[in-house]
Amino acid sequence: MASFDWIELTSSDFTDVAGKVTVVQPIGAIEQHGPHLPVGTDSIVAESVATEASARFGGSVLLLPTISVALSREHVWAPGTISLSPQTLLSLLDDLGRSLKGAGISRLVFLNGHGGNSAILRVVCRELRVQHGLMTFLAHPQLPLDQGGVARDDAEMGFAVHAGRSETSTMLYLKPELVVLDRASKHVPAWLGDFKHIGFGKEVTFGWSSRDFGSAGVIGDPTLATADQGKIAFEAAVDRFVEVLHEVNRFNFPDSSPLG
Amino acid sequence: MASFDWIELTSSDFTDVAGKVTVVQPIGAIEQHGPHLPVGTDSIVAESVATEASARFGGSVLLLPTISVALSREHVWAPGTISLSPQTLLSLLDDLGRSLKGAGISRLVFLNGHGGNSAILRVVCRELRVQHGLMTFLAHPQLPLDQGGVARDDAEMGFAVHAGRSETSTMLYLKPELVVLDRASKHVPAWLGDFKHIGFGKEVTFGWSSRDFGSAGVIGDPTLATADQGKIAFEAAVDRFVEVLHEVNRFNFPDSSPLG
Amino acid sequence: MASFDWIELTSSDFTDVAGKVTVVQPIGAIEQHGPHLPVGTDSIVAESVATEASARFGGSVLLLPTISVALSREHVWAPGTISLSPQTLLSLLDDLGRSLKGAGISRLVFLNGHGGNSAILRVVCRELRVQHGLMTFLAHPQLPLDQGGVARDDAEMGFAVHAGRSETSTMLYLKPELVVLDRASKHVPAWLGDFKHIGFGKEVTFGWSSRDFGSAGVIGDPTLATADQGKIAFEAAVDRFVEVLHEVNRFNFPDSSPLG
Amino acid sequence: MASFDWIELTSSDFTDVAGKVTVVQPIGAIEQHGPHLPVGTDSIVAESVATEASARFGGSVLLLPTISVALSREHVWAPGTISLSPQTLLSLLDDLGRSLKGAGISRLVFLNGHGGNSAILRVVCRELRVQHGLMTFLAHPQLPLDQGGVARDDAEMGFAVHAGRSETSTMLYLKPELVVLDRASKHVPAWLGDFKHIGFGKEVTFGWSSRDFGSAGVIGDPTLATADQGKIAFEAAVDRFVEVLHEVNRFNFPDSSPLG
Amino acid sequence: MASFDWIELTSSDFTDVAGKVTVVQPIGAIEQHGPHLPVGTDSIVAESVATEASARFGGSVLLLPTISVALSREHVWAPGTISLSPQTLLSLLDDLGRSLKGAGISRLVFLNGHGGNSAILRVVCRELRVQHGLMTFLAHPQLPLDQGGVARDDAEMGFAVHAGRSETSTMLYLKPELVVLDRASKHVPAWLGDFKHIGFGKEVTFGWSSRDFGSAGVIGDPTLATADQGKIAFEAAVDRFVEVLHEVNRFNFPDSSPLG
Amino acid sequence: MASFDWIELTSSDFTDVAGKVTVVQPIGAIEQHGPHLPVGTDSIVAESVATEASARFGGSVLLLPTISVALSREHVWAPGTISLSPQTLLSLLDDLGRSLKGAGISRLVFLNGHGGNSAILRVVCRELRVQHGLMTFLAHPQLPLDQGGVARDDAEMGFAVHAGRSETSTMLYLKPELVVLDRASKHVPAWLGDFKHIGFGKEVTFGWSSRDFGSAGVIGDPTLATADQGKIAFEAAVDRFVEVLHEVNRFNFPDSSPLG
Repeated sequence: MASFDWIELTSSDFTDVAGKVTVVQPIGAIEQHGPHLPVGTDSIVAESVATEASARFGGSVLLLPTISVALSREHVWAPGTISLSPQTLLSLLDDLGRSLKGAGISRLVFLNGHGGNSAILRVVCRELRVQHGLMTFLAHPQLPLDQGGVARDDAEMGFAVHAGRSETSTMLYLKPELVVLDRASKHVPAWLGDFKHIGFGKEVTFGWSSRDFGSAGVIGDPTLATADQGKIAFEAAVDRFVEVLHEVNRFNFPDSSPLG
Repeated sequence: MASFDWIELTSSDFTDVAGKVTVVQPIGAIEQHGPHLPVGTDSIVAESVATEASARFGGSVLLLPTISVALSREHVWAPGTISLSPQTLLSLLDDLGRSLKGAGISRLVFLNGHGGNSAILRVVCRELRVQHGLMTFLAHPQLPLDQGGVARDDAEMGFAVHAGRSETSTMLYLKPELVVLDRASKHVPAWLGDFKHIGFGKEVTFGWSSRDFGSAGVIGDPTLATADQGKIAFEAAVDRFVEVLHEVNRFNFPDSSPLG
Repeated sequence: MASFDWIELTSSDFTDVAGKVTVVQPIGAIEQHGPHLPVGTDSIVAESVATEASARFGGSVLLLPTISVALSREHVWAPGTISLSPQTLLSLLDDLGRSLKGAGISRLVFLNGHGGNSAILRVVCRELRVQHGLMTFLAHPQLPLDQGGVARDDAEMGFAVHAGRSETSTMLYLKPELVVLDRASKHVPAWLGDFKHIGFGKEVTFGWSSRDFGSAGVIGDPTLATADQGKIAFEAAVDRFVEVLHEVNRFNFPDSSPLG
Repeated sequence: MASFDWIELTSSDFTDVAGKVTVVQPIGAIEQHGPHLPVGTDSIVAESVATEASARFGGSVLLLPTISVALSREHVWAPGTISLSPQTLLSLLDDLGRSLKGAGISRLVFLNGHGGNSAILRVVCRELRVQHGLMTFLAHPQLPLDQGGVARDDAEMGFAVHAGRSETSTMLYLKPELVVLDRASKHVPAWLGDFKHIGFGKEVTFGWSSRDFGSAGVIGDPTLATADQGKIAFEAAVDRFVEVLHEVNRFNFPDSSPLG
Repeated sequence: MASFDWIELTSSDFTDVAGKVTVVQPIGAIEQHGPHLPVGTDSIVAESVATEASARFGGSVLLLPTISVALSREHVWAPGTISLSPQTLLSLLDDLGRSLKGAGISRLVFLNGHGGNSAILRVVCRELRVQHGLMTFLAHPQLPLDQGGVARDDAEMGFAVHAGRSETSTMLYLKPELVVLDRASKHVPAWLGDFKHIGFGKEVTFGWSSRDFGSAGVIGDPTLATADQGKIAFEAAVDRFVEVLHEVNRFNFPDSSPLG
Repeated sequence: MASFDWIELTSSDFTDVAGKVTVVQPIGAIEQHGPHLPVGTDSIVAESVATEASARFGGSVLLLPTISVALSREHVWAPGTISLSPQTLLSLLDDLGRSLKGAGISRLVFLNGHGGNSAILRVVCRELRVQHGLMTFLAHPQLPLDQGGVARDDAEMGFAVHAGRSETSTMLYLKPELVVLDRASKHVPAWLGDFKHIGFGKEVTFGWSSRDFGSAGVIGDPTLATADQGKIAFEAAVDRFVEVLHEVNRFNFPDSSPLG
């Protein structure tokens, strides 16, 4: 079996595939991305990587429709942002997990395009494991900088977490017509360099709204972006996610007793 | 301004369009549709009608990403169905309404492809009006039979509410490759004819699971379906929704004081 | 066995009747009904019809105490309105369904006197069917105009949904001492006639507060009301509900497997 | 102004009475009361006392419809019991409080006929005071034995908390046709006498289900009941509640700053 | 086995002790206690009594960490108060009960140092009994005056419910360094004496915020407090709780069938 | 001002300190830690580090009572574990945040001793920032291995996430009397080495219960533990947290507009 969209199968088809298939759930966000990127940037990237990787992957994958609206509370001050509350998202994904278990699914991978979703998805991965017995995984097109991701942009000083060089480059490659590059400007919170322990990707994390970094809604330097960098990042993300799917497909807890 | 996808605008763009635009939210379902139709049928139809009508409509429309998973509790017994609980869906749409109000939106139309969503969407339309001050509307590609829709299929005896002639025809037109017509069979609950008051589209409604009508998950006669009927139904739905958008765009309460 | 009030039975009695009886739950509202009708109008009407019909009905009926406070969010702007939130009402009726199932009940009919409750009661009927295995039904003293009911009042132009000729007539018949007819005045939203698709009882429904139709809280023409019309409407409602009870009593899903 | 039913006023009437009136909310239960008393006993008693006292009281009282279904979790094991969860009841009464505040009400008295409601009503009285600024009071037809009430029945050894002499007597007076006295039998948990600290109305309370005291559902000795005792108890309850209404009507916090 | 702290046992130890042990859960509050007592007064007292009594008690006791933050909504107007909502506290204690049942525990005693927690803890004791099958008990260092406790302070006229002579004395004994006695002043709501039925510890309770009794946050006369009185009260509380533990340890429902 | 316990201040004291102080909230867990460590290990460590660091820190710190019970769903299979649900913990910490804001606090640091809490605390830090306007920080005694912490134990192959060398060493230093070292045994999931992307502290995280790694509840090699290593780790944690407190104390968003 190859890659399929969940919504394109009939109910009868699930009887055949349930035990063998890995379910991929792309999840993004609809939130302000500065004046130069569309609010759906994270959903577009997550869906693009998930779709492309599922197609390239030879094994059994079922792709769920992208969850476009998720947890974007740090951006609700800006028009165009649509955010769930954490409680709503927990309920939604618990309902999803229950339905997947009902369909006989055992493996679920979230491909998450929005760093602000990562923490609650970690909670959800554990809940779905313990409450419903699913094996659950959380992958990213690119590991967020504030979650162990490597800062590749020296000019951004390691502070590029939103609408900066990397995201803008990827969008220039995937959807150049949606990028208004001449509106982009650099917003690097250099003052964070005064702190040794506190910061994005440092040992002590902190609660922030993007408004805390100015009214532009940008944290990074999008002026450095190019489509070429975006192509490289996108291809790397797809390749990596194909590898992840291979690993997920053979993952098993050797010593687990039944849960959920 | 013409039709746009919400996710493709930048946050800055909302400042320009917020007051002038009608937001369209397609909503469907992922649920068993018998052995012959894909589980995403309702989402596919809702998205197709909404997209086509928005494109044909000359005025200002912002199209939100389709909500694919909604209220399908009557089908949770069958694999492939993914359903939220009513509480989750109320929370999700309340979060949505709050975000839309935050973006300065005043008009929201749900285009709902799944009859099982209609009742809760009526509740939501009222809540969003009273709690957030939005003007809200609920439209359907085709009015569900059990909500005042005219039964056009005599051979189905007025009992065709799920995966029957109409839905199957529409899918034969829109996505013939996803229809497994040779698995389709007739399941018309003729026994309902013994009741004068109780029934689909009658005066007394009743709670039902599709399992109450047999293990096939079909209520209607899909063997009567043809792509031609589907084309006619789809075109009629698009035309009607274009007209609806014109009406929504000029709708106003002449005597309302501020709410929400 | 004849009709009984649930609250008048002892716990031991339920052992005898549980399997044979249809439970009737009248539900109304406490909400502004213009300056001329009492806020309890919907509860009074629902209780009157349910009580009278249960008495006339020869078979086994258990009448629950009327739920007087329900979903009246469209009237919360006016003093005297008491409304639950949708979430509270869902919880309350889920608790009710669980208790009924615990008592061995299998058939439950809501007799709903308030149009604003209809949509959430449809959701509830389904939930109680799927979650608790009850057979559930939703009946009305008179089908609301915006839910397929026939508009009988030409002078009201089909726009009489609240505190208009029909409700006022019924109250003039049932509780004339509570009607302050000289405070009644006509408030017909003729502007709705400009819309082909959008409107009460039309194809596209919309979210509204009664405040959207002016500060009187009336949508219709109560000045046309007479006690004679009310008597006719009330008797028709009772007769119809007796027939409904007969149908409910013999209703069964022939092909259902156990649920809930 | 004299006593009125809330539901019988028009919305306009509230403008006149809101500031001057005390609102009375009778609340009871639907729960097993042994084989000899109807499940609605607590609601019947609460409503009777509230109605009679409101009528005798000369001042301004608005009587709300009785809340018949409340918190009866200790009796859910027995058929005929209908119970809300604590969370549902908190939500319901919060919605009520919000609506009362919206109507300009400042004084609310619960007349509670079911001991199992008392604790949560204390929580609610505080919540409505702090969250909505209402002055709130909790009164009982007869103070429950386990809440400081005096044990008047020596033969019941102070253990008569449910369906015993007192409740049965009151029902013999109010609704003799609903009492099946020949089914009544004595169930006094004499073993509780072994405990100095733990017990009904003692210093240390404990969680119990009525099932913990045997399958009869009785805790007390209903065989001692007579209609005469019931008359005395009922008249005393009415007299006392009239006095309470006088006190409530003049109650004020002299030193309070605005709350809620 | 003697008294242990729950947190000091290993998971393996629970296999040995679960069936034999009584679990003690001290619960207090963090809330304003006038200008002279620390906000943690109730937690300090509850923990002190629980710890000392558990140590003196010869039998099997497991002491849980004190719940310091509980239900203090009547004091949220004053800085330093930390309060949960009733819903949060219900959820927290339901989670606790589920975990205790999972550990094989059958007896749980709350030692509650804050009168404002008593009502909801009564609700919780019943819920944990009915939902999880635990035997549950509610004890106090000193029975609150408004819950049947004897008013021992004549000079306080029976109105000493918060930060008055008794609490201040206990703290002068336990933690004299935390008492700022020269800030203490008398605040006795003598006006409550005008009411026969309404009042602390009277038949009719009422909802109040401590702000309703003035901006000092004191209801009582702390100027009468001495460490000697505190010593007597504390020792009496410990002695009494030791006796309570003996009773709890041998408590059983003789006629109960399995619950929860 | 130096370090104080929140519970030891009077309400009046908060007026003086609110604007100047950093609040420290230690949070741990009560959960199985294998057969050799007490279930309160995480709470003991968090409280020890927070208390010691607050004492050494010269500046203004207010220490809240440790939250001992938090999110331990991955250990609920084992007796002694007490876990909240994610929803309860979100509510609890939202209530806390609201109370802190009410007291005029602007800076809150969680010192979290349990890796299973980290993700939800990240969600909470953001919520408290956006909803209540607090500046919030999340620190750990030692950064969890699966959150970017450096794996220092080669013999554990980087798989020591629960009850292994590090935690056992720290407890041997802090509370040797609570460690049953002869029950400790090595449980290193070497099979995780077969995965390049999936794993603790790798790019792709996964949902797990500790039961998935065997019935011992250990993931790591506690047999390598010594008190000396524990002393070094503890002292490093305290030193680091003192530095963190200095940073928190001077932290400010230079460009933020008012939130919450």
